[in-house]
Amino acid sequence: MITIILVSHSRKISDGIVDMITEMVPSDNVTVLSAGGTEDGGIGTDPMRIQSLIETHQESERIYLFGDIGSSIMSIEMVLDLIDSDFKEKCLYIDAPLVEGAFVAAVQAMIDPSHEAILREVNKLKNNQG
Amino acid sequence: MITIILVSHSRKISDGIVDMITEMVPSDNVTVLSAGGTEDGGIGTDPMRIQSLIETHQESERIYLFGDIGSSIMSIEMVLDLIDSDFKEKCLYIDAPLVEGAFVAAVQAMIDPSHEAILREVNKLKNNQG
Repeated sequence: MITIILVSHSRKISDGIVDMITEMVPSDNVTVLSAGGTEDGGIGTDPMRIQSLIETHQESERIYLFGDIGSSIMSIEMVLDLIDSDFKEKCLYIDAPLVEGAFVAAVQAMIDPSHEAILREVNKLKNNQG
Repeated sequence: MITIILVSHSRKISDGIVDMITEMVPSDNVTVLSAGGTEDGGIGTDPMRIQSLIETHQESERIYLFGDIGSSIMSIEMVLDLIDSDFKEKCLYIDAPLVEGAFVAAVQAMIDPSHEAILREVNKLKNNQG
């Protein structure tokens, strides 16, 4: 099982990506989780929520985190610094566009959920957009 | 006035981007419009809605369209083929990540809404992610 955590500044954005992937790429290999917005549903990020989602999905083979703009990435990095080092190597922040990157990762995880294949496909996306 | 039209497969995603930009980059220079999801709110795109938003914003200096994945871009291209040729030159599909690209375009339009400046900043984002 692969877990994808979506860290957007808006809960609607991350909820919408979950809806899109769940409908377009239904797969038992992938769990997609929404971690957008602040604790009270405002615009911003919520490091406690990100940490809690990571900790409740420790059984996953890998946890990929995607962010949207600046401070979402700082929140992800702060949380990754805080979690147990034994578990940290499973978790990876992916520097790719939020919607498009998470979608490509989910498609690839359905076909071949190996770490190498997922990183290869996300990198292809980034290079095509460059 | 610059108009940004967000063509996502999910209405929640494009609504969330409108919320995020409205709160983080409030500007009289920019109107951001949500064109996500199908007519009935499902996952997909709605070319009629895209066309209608373009036509009701003909007074804008420029209309930038952003999509998320494959068929949103096909919908944008289809609509751009259908609109009046006199008006078409104002409209531009931007090949950039949906959330990040629209955000950068809105920030730049607040500072300097010239076409060259907006394209330059969106291209920087793409090159940084490549």
